[in-house]
Amino acid sequence: MVTILPDETLDDLIIGNLKLLQKREGFRFNMDSVLLAHFATVKTGDRIVDLGTGTGVIPLLLSTRLKKGQIVGLEIQPEMAEMAGRSVEMNGLQGLVQIMQGDLRETKKKLPGGTYTLVTANPPYGTLGEGLLNPFWGKALARHEVSCSLEDVIACAGNLLNYQGRFAMIHRVERLLGIIDLLKRYRLEPRRLRFIHPLPNKPAGHVLLEARKQGAPDMKVLPPLFVYERAGKYSTEIMNWYQRGDEMGGKT
Amino acid sequence: MVTILPDETLDDLIIGNLKLLQKREGFRFNMDSVLLAHFATVKTGDRIVDLGTGTGVIPLLLSTRLKKGQIVGLEIQPEMAEMAGRSVEMNGLQGLVQIMQGDLRETKKKLPGGTYTLVTANPPYGTLGEGLLNPFWGKALARHEVSCSLEDVIACAGNLLNYQGRFAMIHRVERLLGIIDLLKRYRLEPRRLRFIHPLPNKPAGHVLLEARKQGAPDMKVLPPLFVYERAGKYSTEIMNWYQRGDEMGGKT
Repeated sequence: MVTILPDETLDDLIIGNLKLLQKREGFRFNMDSVLLAHFATVKTGDRIVDLGTGTGVIPLLLSTRLKKGQIVGLEIQPEMAEMAGRSVEMNGLQGLVQIMQGDLRETKKKLPGGTYTLVTANPPYGTLGEGLLNPFWGKALARHEVSCSLEDVIACAGNLLNYQGRFAMIHRVERLLGIIDLLKRYRLEPRRLRFIHPLPNKPAGHVLLEARKQGAPDMKVLPPLFVYERAGKYSTEIMNWYQRGDEMGGKT
Repeated sequence: MVTILPDETLDDLIIGNLKLLQKREGFRFNMDSVLLAHFATVKTGDRIVDLGTGTGVIPLLLSTRLKKGQIVGLEIQPEMAEMAGRSVEMNGLQGLVQIMQGDLRETKKKLPGGTYTLVTANPPYGTLGEGLLNPFWGKALARHEVSCSLEDVIACAGNLLNYQGRFAMIHRVERLLGIIDLLKRYRLEPRRLRFIHPLPNKPAGHVLLEARKQGAPDMKVLPPLFVYERAGKYSTEIMNWYQRGDEMGGKT
């Protein structure tokens, strides 16, 4: 029996019948994590690190696509890391997923560089100084670049990945050009982009991006992803993720 | 009465009831020019240069969106420039469109730098050394970077444009990252991107891009453009361009 604390809720991810513990008042997972976990290329035997894992939602979702391998979720906040660990236990995924408390700027001590095949990140979207910081410190960490900058995240991915390893992230479109510059600086070559439009006739708000460590230049722009096909109606693609229920993945 | 030479055809652009002279055996205009002419932001009073105008198809199409202003089509091949000039005459557009024979690497002598509000280009897609050169020299010029490099085109646009002037181009997605690097080098800030997918479930093949001279960073990714909505059936957006008949433009 796994403990659920009074300030926590136990939520159903539906996908993969996964359960997830979340703080009632803290940052709660949103669709971005689900989009990223579907987008990343996952291969049997992958050694994965999710940077700034929070509740551990991305490792849990990725586990449904990984029959064999290893997923580490790295989280700086001890309380979040502890809760994420209980979520892993609750889903019986201790054999595949490990939550580790630590600062992604100091991974060298804990995680062997150049040995991972996939690094994922759903980093904070705001830069410091942009918008108000959230008065809940946990939310501030998740939403703004308080504990680390985007460059820290990308540098960390560049360090952890092996040759041709993949880095998958989601971010706001406004940051795309800056992200591409940073990726190149850390020898991560952008290879797959997928733009996310709230509706088919609206500009993209977010972008899914996969880069390859020391990869050759060959960037593809995948079919767009529409969240809604019209106001209030989720697109067929997203509905399918939830209706299939037992497993994620498939072609993106 | 405008002359039509034996090696030329007179074609109907449908849009704007425009007529276009083309070489029977040379490079013939394709949908890319139509896409670009729809995509570019056109404002009353614009002073426009189309680089490597070929048959002059882009200036002719743009003329339907410009009530007042000036469009120069610059073409290096004398025979093409002469033919494009006759197309302009045939459509009675001499008041708005002027075709000029010249090399875009030497515009400083002919066109005043820093004075144009919009520069367009549908440049050759292949780099030299990629694929076979077309044995017809005119086609080789249009398809490969024989007479100028992509950097020449972008440098020329950067020179011609005034402060906040727009540069609109179409190119293959594979070249996008390199194009963005070049644009930044010439102080052209990418502001609008629109990806063109042959079908909704296929990766983008081409991209429409608008940059602004000395513009602030603020890039939008517009709704995707699908050429076909399913095999053999043009998308509604493209059908509408042709069915409206009398005028181009509208929201992109």
